[in-house]
Amino acid sequence: MHRSRLSSAIIDCNDLQEASRFWSGALGVEVASEDPPYVFLRGGAGGLQVGLQLVPEPKAAKSPVHLDFETDDLDAEVARLEALGARRQRFVEHWGIMEDPHGNEFCVVPRRPEEMPSDAADWTA
Amino acid sequence: MHRSRLSSAIIDCNDLQEASRFWSGALGVEVASEDPPYVFLRGGAGGLQVGLQLVPEPKAAKSPVHLDFETDDLDAEVARLEALGARRQRFVEHWGIMEDPHGNEFCVVPRRPEEMPSDAADWTA
Repeated sequence: MHRSRLSSAIIDCNDLQEASRFWSGALGVEVASEDPPYVFLRGGAGGLQVGLQLVPEPKAAKSPVHLDFETDDLDAEVARLEALGARRQRFVEHWGIMEDPHGNEFCVVPRRPEEMPSDAADWTA
Repeated sequence: MHRSRLSSAIIDCNDLQEASRFWSGALGVEVASEDPPYVFLRGGAGGLQVGLQLVPEPKAAKSPVHLDFETDDLDAEVARLEALGARRQRFVEHWGIMEDPHGNEFCVVPRRPEEMPSDAADWTA
């Protein structure tokens, strides 16, 4: 018998310091370890850890894997992420598509307040 | 004040049924909802939900975002994932790089048994 679990989502970047600043701010968590070409952040959703990986190549056109945020206030969350350096790309149906400073797409999905899990971060404008 | 959290990792595929079979097997979790072009699985790491998205285009060359598994038995985990349809791509240092049936890379990282979180799945060969 052996054991396994999904442990991390690793995001490419061309600047570890900039990526650490953006993603630690976006998730509201601190850097857990720096070991270039990797930086790991403390968990941002349950036990999942977000990692950043320095890569030499420019970003691929479109990622076949992306991350979603959920929030009880879409406009406030988009504004918060823009202030950190994310770019608003487009809105599809009821959610927003944004890009991190490396150009990686992620989505911001609205939820009703009562749908938000207890481990969501509280943000004050 | 508003709230947000990282909620999901969404993985592109060209076949929702095949992707659901592989990823639900890989994570040991059931399908939570089917609403094409999306299928969501029950959480595979803490509160993070893995989703599958049907896309018309072929896979991009290399994803700038990838997921990691952690396991207390690398050989057994790689064999388990191969049996589900993953392909072994290469080994870098002490971890394995594999591809899901859509060609999305993911890593399998070895841990000592005492490092494995309590929410890891138990697998019997």
